[in-house]
Formats: sequence, structure tokens, C-alpha cells
Amino acid sequence: MKFQNPEDTICALSTPQGMGAIAVIRLSGSDTFKIINEVFSRDITEIPSHKVIFGTIKDGEEIIDEIVLSIYRNPNSFTGEDIAEISCHGSTYIQERILNLLINKGARLAGPGEFSLRAFLNGKMDLSQTEAIADLISSRSKAAHKVAMNQMRGGFSQEISALRQELLNFASLIELELDFSEEDVEFADRKELTDLLDKIDKKVNSLVASFQYGNVLKSGVPVAIVGAPNAGKSTLLNALLNEDRAIVSDIAGTTRDTVEDTIVLDGIEFRFIDTAGIRDTKDSIETEGIRKAFEKIKKARIILLLFDLEGVRDDEIIEQISLFEKKSVQEDQELICLFNKSDKVKVDDRVNLKDIGLFISAKKGEEIDDLKKILVSRVKSVSSYDDTVVTNVRHHEILKKVAASIQKVKDGMDQQITGDLLAMDIRETLNLLGEITGEITTDDLLGNIFANFCIGK
Amino acid sequence: MKFQNPEDTICALSTPQGMGAIAVIRLSGSDTFKIINEVFSRDITEIPSHKVIFGTIKDGEEIIDEIVLSIYRNPNSFTGEDIAEISCHGSTYIQERILNLLINKGARLAGPGEFSLRAFLNGKMDLSQTEAIADLISSRSKAAHKVAMNQMRGGFSQEISALRQELLNFASLIELELDFSEEDVEFADRKELTDLLDKIDKKVNSLVASFQYGNVLKSGVPVAIVGAPNAGKSTLLNALLNEDRAIVSDIAGTTRDTVEDTIVLDGIEFRFIDTAGIRDTKDSIETEGIRKAFEKIKKARIILLLFDLEGVRDDEIIEQISLFEKKSVQEDQELICLFNKSDKVKVDDRVNLKDIGLFISAKKGEEIDDLKKILVSRVKSVSSYDDTVVTNVRHHEILKKVAASIQKVKDGMDQQITGDLLAMDIRETLNLLGEITGEITTDDLLGNIFANFCIGK
Repeated sequence: MKFQNPEDTICALSTPQGMGAIAVIRLSGSDTFKIINEVFSRDITEIPSHKVIFGTIKDGEEIIDEIVLSIYRNPNSFTGEDIAEISCHGSTYIQERILNLLINKGARLAGPGEFSLRAFLNGKMDLSQTEAIADLISSRSKAAHKVAMNQMRGGFSQEISALRQELLNFASLIELELDFSEEDVEFADRKELTDLLDKIDKKVNSLVASFQYGNVLKSGVPVAIVGAPNAGKSTLLNALLNEDRAIVSDIAGTTRDTVEDTIVLDGIEFRFIDTAGIRDTKDSIETEGIRKAFEKIKKARIILLLFDLEGVRDDEIIEQISLFEKKSVQEDQELICLFNKSDKVKVDDRVNLKDIGLFISAKKGEEIDDLKKILVSRVKSVSSYDDTVVTNVRHHEILKKVAASIQKVKDGMDQQITGDLLAMDIRETLNLLGEITGEITTDDLLGNIFANFCIGK
Repeated sequence: MKFQNPEDTICALSTPQGMGAIAVIRLSGSDTFKIINEVFSRDITEIPSHKVIFGTIKDGEEIIDEIVLSIYRNPNSFTGEDIAEISCHGSTYIQERILNLLINKGARLAGPGEFSLRAFLNGKMDLSQTEAIADLISSRSKAAHKVAMNQMRGGFSQEISALRQELLNFASLIELELDFSEEDVEFADRKELTDLLDKIDKKVNSLVASFQYGNVLKSGVPVAIVGAPNAGKSTLLNALLNEDRAIVSDIAGTTRDTVEDTIVLDGIEFRFIDTAGIRDTKDSIETEGIRKAFEKIKKARIILLLFDLEGVRDDEIIEQISLFEKKSVQEDQELICLFNKSDKVKVDDRVNLKDIGLFISAKKGEEIDDLKKILVSRVKSVSSYDDTVVTNVRHHEILKKVAASIQKVKDGMDQQITGDLLAMDIRETLNLLGEITGEITTDDLLGNIFANFCIGK
């Protein structure tokens, strides 16, 4: 993505597309108020910041709409620039007419995330905070919302930024030593530097480890239901979904795109992977033919392995579990064994299964609540992280590099490398840390980040 | 529709449903600021009207979102009540959390059009202006937008209201005469009353007549393309659509629900009726079997009757047109004859057709622009109305009754009926006029009107 001129005054529809009671069109940049004065029924030159005024938008003599205009004068605005927000009637025709009018008067349509980009470039937010906006908007569960909100309000990036500043001071001192290299002075206390490196290292490693959990919170927990055709997989899925699928949309009129079956339990979203290939197969789970379908469940974090208690002996089930675990369960996957149709057999007789899984009746909905509790606990057991959780792939990648980079600095110190080499290694760490907060950026980096934003944000 | 308590404080999402950069939640009623003070990070008691302030929405200790709050203090608001508008991040999760929170604090979800209803009940707008809001929001073409905007800004209802006031004065005078009936005085000048009745009558009849045009502007002009299977109907439709269908959505990212093929020409929307039954038939147009399909084109205002010039003689075509006109064209329908495939025959030889239709080549797109001009002119020729056009079925129905009612008053005066009977007839006219502006309303009437509004407006 090539950035367009940051000096332009930009405009975009900021509310969702389509028809509604009202729509909001945002205008930001140095020409904002000049443009508004050309199309608005009142002169806003003397209107103070953070005022809303009522008036009409006109294209020449034609009244396009009666609107409410909000005025934000730089630097006290989201972007740090002059901003006008036009709250108009939510007709798509009116939205288009107003956008066209603003464009005719010299604004241009904003690119994806361009308002947020400007907020970052004008120092209103650091990069990680800005990135959290997109996460916040797309959050669909309590957990995802909480993590994004925490990140937007500073989250770990303020801590990272503070640690980076401390390290920067050391780097400066070490670089200063180089100017006095013939005198063999040591301005930077090596013990303190080591302590700081340890501190950063600990923080970074904790953040790296939190990503597994954070990613789950943000994207939902992929769950696969695996079992022989008669085991009752779709009955189980329905039992899980029926009660809870409406939780996130219990307010009349809210809609969401459901691309897969999901439920939200205790604020955590669980996504059920389409394992149609396994559902439909007539092969039993140990056969070779089903391997292909199993590729799909490699994406799962939790696997529900479902057995039909009827007509299958305990030792057969145990053997199959053992085989499945060996062949198909990866290290980072959680396996939960479920023994279905507990309403049809004498559960008390199946003592060998008691400790390795849960007896359920998918059809009668029995023990489904227990299963839900287990699902939640398996996710939460992954970590005891507080709100400071990394959910962003980019941050995770950089943090891993930071950890390696710090190790390199430490190794260098152990090997008593020269100050100039040490300074270089520290600079590398500093650069990496700066990429998280945006203190160090490139156009490419920003382009990648903001391309994923929606227009109008 | 039963109205809910107008004393309640109501809340709703006012922007379109779904995910966007921002969403706006509106709260109106006497508890608005009390509720906001319970969930907002800042005390707004001292904040003046028409200010926007930044802060956080909290559910207990949990931060739901960073928002911008707009404050409107009664009576200077859309509804005339205290209003708060919460501009939050456009996550559906956040929208739901905030609405739930407001409801928990004592607000209730607004019914359809309930904000507009309150604006009417509190005297911020008359009824016809309020009704225009719904039309404005659903307007999709320049013409529909213009008519709705004119109506929202007062339009004919102010005139109606003024005429009604004049008539009301006469009614009072005539009722006063009744008190002095034994003295045989005449406070109400009968000549002036007759002049006023003529004035109202003229206005009302002009408005009644404008409805045909107004309805077309609001809902689009239904057009049917009729012709034998080989005449080139779908080629013609494509030729008409291809260039212009994108006109109303030329701004990137705007979408609209296209339920049928439509084009907008010169600001007027043309809707092509699905005449699939006719398109697919193998019968020629004069046969009996096709009659059923013709039921559909009764809904058309304009019929494009399409002939294939190839292999059909002029006299055959003329005969078919004559038959079609007689059997299938209603009085209020416009018939346009089109002779297709002008690229394949010698048009100069077809002198008999020259004056009764247009030679076109749907395939090569020839004369399609001329056809478009004809379509527009046929709609505009219906009337030379200015902006004061009736588009609302309810208004149209009442205006027709007003015309009849005035006639009754006039007849009464001609027959020199007694003052008390005359006063009764005038009261009837007054009541009808008052139903348009809302000076006279019933709960049923309001219920019907606002049930068609969207929630949040």
C-alpha cells in the first residue's frame, strides 16, 4: 500500500454502510472548516471546538439535508487535525450526495484506517494502541473486547515504551563511552544494564507466552468434534449451540455474520470447525482413509472426541483414545473425551471410562453444562494472565525477535565484547521494541497495518 | 400498534446495524442525564447543551468503550426532550453492551419511529413533516429526495395549516351567529367564505392531482418491457441498465439492496417489472394464453412494446399495436412502441412505423439514449408541478376526502342550509385538514404511521 498525501483533507462514511436513522460522515484535515463553510448554512469560523450545531448542507441552492455538525479543532480531536462530523439522515442517497459534495470542494475519500493513521502520525496514540482500534471494532466476545480495550488504553505498550526508554539511556551511555574509549571509562553500570535486560527479557517472554491465550481470546477457540458417524456429533453440536448461540445477539435488530457455528461461554468465543469430512465418513476413526479429513482438525485447539457407549466395549474405547492421542493430538491441543448416550446404557458399569472423560447424553442435553464448564476451564488453564495479553500476530513476531535480540546482548556481555559491538546489539533491541509502539516505523509497516482497517476509521 | 409510555426514557441504535468505524446510540427522555451520569466517566450535570465531551462508558468498574457524548438539553433537541447521543466504536458487541447497560439503568428500547413520534408530540414538527423523515431516509433518487426534503421542511403542510386556520375563523364566526340566531345577524361574510372555500378547493385538487406524479417520484416508475420472445427484450433491458445502473452507487463502498432492475434517469428512478412470464412464453402477444402474464404489467406506468422488425410486416405490427392498446393498455398507462433490430433491416422502407414509435437496435445500443429521453419526458409530462407534490398515500386519501367535504359545504351554502348544519360541515373539513398536519390525531393514526419507521429514528 502506497500512502496518499497526508496533507490532504479526507472524508469518509464512518457508520456502517446501508440505510439507517442517521449516518455520520467524517472530514479531517487542514481544509476541513474551509470546505464546511462552503457547504453549510452557517459560518463556523467562530464556533468553538466540541460544539454541535444544527443547519443544512447545501449543494449550491439545493438543500441536501438538515444535519447536526460536530466541530473538533486541532489538536483536540481524534486525528489531531481539524475534524467536522456530519450527522445526516441515513439515506444512502444523502450519504453519497454529501460525500460527493465534499470531494467536489477539495476533500478526498479516506483510505482504510487513514483517520487512525493520522491519529498515530500526529502522536495522539502509539502504534499498538491504534492497532487495538481495529481489534476493538471487530470484537465479538467479552474476552476479545476486554483485551482490545486494554491495549487501546495503553496496555503493555506503555510498559514496553518505558523499558525501551531505560534501555535507550544505557545505549547512550555506552555510546558515550566510545568517545572516551582511550580513557577506558565505564559510564554505563554493567550490573544495572544486566538487571534491566533481565527485566525486559522477563516481560517480553511473558508477553510472548501470553499470545497463545490472547490469540484465542481474539479469534475465538477453534473446537473440533470428532467421532464415528453414529456417535452423535451433530446432536452434540446442536445441544451446545441451541441454548447459547443467541447470547451475543439478544438485542432485537442486531445482526452478525455467522460464518461458522460459534458459542460464547463465559465471555470466550468457541468456533466449531467444519469437520464435515469426518462427520460424513463411514470409516471408523482408526482407518487410514480418514487421515485426510484429520488435516482439518489440526487447526483445532480443543478436540472433543466422542464415543457411542452403546455396543462399544470400554477396552475398545480406551484403545481408540490411545491410538487417537498418539496419531492425531498435537502438543498444543487439548483433548476432551466424551461418552455419549448415557441415557441408554448403565453408566455405573463403565468404571474404566469414568476418569478419562465425561458421560453425556447429547440428545437429552445431559451434562452439557458440565461440558461447557470444562471447555472454559481448558482455555483459562492455559494461563493465568491478567489483562496484559498479546493478541496481535505482528507484536508476537516482534516480541520473539526482541527475546532473541536480548539474548544476543547478554551473550555479548558475557563474552565481554567491545562497547561498539554491544551498542550495536542494543540498538537492534531498541529498534525492535520501537516497532511495537511505533517509535520506529516504515511506510511498508504502516501500510500493512492500516490496510486491514475499515474506511472511515 | 399500542403506544408505550411516552414518559419513559428510550434508547436505540440510530446508525445502520452491523460493524463500522463508529455507531451512534441515542437516549431521549427525562431520565437521560441521570442515566448517563451513572455510566459515564464524567459528571455532565453542568455541561451545557450542544456540547460534545470525550469520556468512557463504564459498567461498574469495567470500561465498555471510549466514547464521544453529545448533549442536547430540552427543549433544544430533536425530540424536544433531554437527549444524549453516544458515539462509540462500531463493534456489535459494544453496541449491545451499551444498550443493555442503558436498559439496566432504567431506559427502555425505543419502538419504531418513537423518537420522531416524540418530536411530533412535543411540537417540534407537524405530522406531515415527521412522515417525510421516513421518506427522506428511504429516498434513493434525486427526485424522491427533493420531494421528501421539501415536505420535511414544511412543504404543503404549512399552507394547509394556514388555510385551515382561516377556515377555522369562519367556523367560529358561524358558530357565534348561532348564539344570536334570533337576531338573524351574519358575522361570517358568505362571499369571503366562498372565496376561501374556492381557494382551499383549488389547492387541494392540485395536491390530489400531484399524487400520481409524486408517487412515481417516491417509489420509482414501474416499467414493463413487452414483446414476443424473439423481439430482444432482455437485450433491451441490458442496454438500458448497463450504463446507468451504477449511477446511484458510484462512491466506493456504498451498497444498496437491489430487489429489481432499476435505473435512475435525470433524477427519476425507473423500476423494471419482472415480466418473466411474458419473456419466456412461446406464444405471440395476441394469444389468449398470455393474458395471465399480462396481469403483471397492469402495475406498470410505462409499457415498452417491443417488436422485431425482421420478418414482421408493418401492417402486422400496426395491427398488433392496435390490438394491444385496446386490450391491455389502461388509461393511466403510457405506451411506447419500439421497433428493434434497426441494424438489420432497411429502416427507410418502414415509413408506416416512423411516426408511431422509435427504431432502435438494442444489441448495438443505438437510439437507447433517445429512448431514455422519452422515458423521462413521459414522466415529466404527467405534470408541471413544482416541489409541492403529494407522495404519501395517507395524505392523498385525506385530500380526496377534503375535496368532497368542501363540495358538501359549498352545496350547503347554495341550498342556504341553516348555520348549524353549515358549521357541522365546515367542522368536518377542518378535522380532515387537521389530520394531515396532525392538529387532529388519534392513537390509531399515529400507530399506523410510526409502525413503518425504523427503530432509532
